[in-house]
Amino acid sequence: MYGVYCDGASAVLRKDLPGPSPLEGEVVVHVRAAGICDTDIQLARGYMGFRGVLGHEFVGETADGRRVTAEINNSCGRCPTCLEGRPRHCPSRSVLGILNHDGAMAERVSVPARNLHEVPDAIDDRSAVFIEPLAAAFRITEQVELGPGVRMAILGDGKLGLLCAWVARLTGAEVHLVGKHPVKLAMAGEGVRPVPLGRAAELGQAFDVVADCTGSKSGLPTALRLVRPCGTVVLKTTVAGDYTINLAPVVIDEVRVIGSRCGPFPPAIEALAAGRVDVRPLIASVRPLVEADEAFREASSPGARKVLLEMGRPG
Amino acid sequence: MYGVYCDGASAVLRKDLPGPSPLEGEVVVHVRAAGICDTDIQLARGYMGFRGVLGHEFVGETADGRRVTAEINNSCGRCPTCLEGRPRHCPSRSVLGILNHDGAMAERVSVPARNLHEVPDAIDDRSAVFIEPLAAAFRITEQVELGPGVRMAILGDGKLGLLCAWVARLTGAEVHLVGKHPVKLAMAGEGVRPVPLGRAAELGQAFDVVADCTGSKSGLPTALRLVRPCGTVVLKTTVAGDYTINLAPVVIDEVRVIGSRCGPFPPAIEALAAGRVDVRPLIASVRPLVEADEAFREASSPGARKVLLEMGRPG
Repeated sequence: MYGVYCDGASAVLRKDLPGPSPLEGEVVVHVRAAGICDTDIQLARGYMGFRGVLGHEFVGETADGRRVTAEINNSCGRCPTCLEGRPRHCPSRSVLGILNHDGAMAERVSVPARNLHEVPDAIDDRSAVFIEPLAAAFRITEQVELGPGVRMAILGDGKLGLLCAWVARLTGAEVHLVGKHPVKLAMAGEGVRPVPLGRAAELGQAFDVVADCTGSKSGLPTALRLVRPCGTVVLKTTVAGDYTINLAPVVIDEVRVIGSRCGPFPPAIEALAAGRVDVRPLIASVRPLVEADEAFREASSPGARKVLLEMGRPG
Repeated sequence: MYGVYCDGASAVLRKDLPGPSPLEGEVVVHVRAAGICDTDIQLARGYMGFRGVLGHEFVGETADGRRVTAEINNSCGRCPTCLEGRPRHCPSRSVLGILNHDGAMAERVSVPARNLHEVPDAIDDRSAVFIEPLAAAFRITEQVELGPGVRMAILGDGKLGLLCAWVARLTGAEVHLVGKHPVKLAMAGEGVRPVPLGRAAELGQAFDVVADCTGSKSGLPTALRLVRPCGTVVLKTTVAGDYTINLAPVVIDEVRVIGSRCGPFPPAIEALAAGRVDVRPLIASVRPLVEADEAFREASSPGARKVLLEMGRPG
């Protein structure tokens, strides 16, 4: 079958891939559309040494005609971590298109049946591809109490920053989005206050919650300058390798720094189905799978919006 | 009067200090005993540029004969931070013997009346000096849920590490104390499991809570190797200056890192009065105030236990 294969040094379209071999408990899904995520671009450059089919943001169709997407952490369900209710952290998990499991940028993908979520008709294919990253934004609402009266700053006006801003806005929190790109800040829309990065310092050390979605080494230091004493910094993005930082303010101001990764699918699906979040402005382009190489080049340009691949009808 | 004066480059005994000039709302306390803390040693080397009388761990007597100690953060009580219930983080606070306020290593000290706590007769003067650092250990119990079934590791077998271990033990948590000094690990006593640092890795990534009391750059990386996914790292000690660290595990494992500083005095006073914590083994020596210079030398030696100064009767 056709698919985007990562060999640890690059990601290329191949047409000679074997179809998926479902493991016990897995079902085959015919992929309708998949998104290219910044993580895919990192993986294609050798991050985590992944070899296999890329893709963890997708929508597809099961053999019995259900339109579905799937959670990406394939946990064992039996270890202490799973039994204690943290299956996304199962130490022997595979992760769709990221760790020891082929992903969804192909005609077909196999996923654990228990990871499937049906996609309501109200969500079109292109929006459905955003369920996974939108769920990651909803993860913040599981970790931090957001709501009216809470002042929140989100650092980074990329795709994840915008999704986090839209989710935070739903809670009634006062949301400020700090970024470098006027065009993207303008996308934040009603209910989110755009702040050019150069003016962030004027906001003061006055935020209950600051989410770092920059993927940059400057993110955490900036967050520590904006968060109030006893406030919370949510780290949504990793920074590759070591970095140098003064963490004394964390102790002196008794800040909480919380790592935040994958999130719950149901609220993401509900928000999209109800039209409370509209992700379509985040789409830069939609290309057929056969143009995957061009799609990766487009998605790799700095500040690119989301590039989608459409697989066409199973044939 | 006699007192230990820090000129930003050293701390020396002086006999020509003016007595305290109480600000509005302050009362004068005749100091009976004061402790030398690692922070005092740092301040004496120029940390924070402090100039004034050192000392924030003390017990004394008011003019009306009450035996007292005092919280160290002198807050304004009127700013948003104070009104929101975080007076220890008041941005215009002074801090006893640390920031813009003379401390207690002298014959007399003035402190805000509202910061006073009476010391019950059941607590001797030497133990009472530990109320402030013991309160800092109790701060953890305000920030993290400890109790039966919780596995906790404390890194660092210094004075603060031992105090934290003793407080954690009171909650019923399973407490492991990781340190380099067999003699100090042995002081942990019943109910605390001593772990030589070299064997810490064998414990695995299996702790719900890890408290870093090392004051060392290796503390946080070690903590991140021991904390379970979605677990909590409490930073009790600061590390001077920048350090280089890979924080990706915080995001990937969704760890919470919480800074922790000053704590509540009442539970510390109760624990000492009830004999549930015995701090006396932490005392290396007790010297009269006139031997302050020797006392500082003794307290500055690596791994020193607590050195106390006694002021004698007011005369």
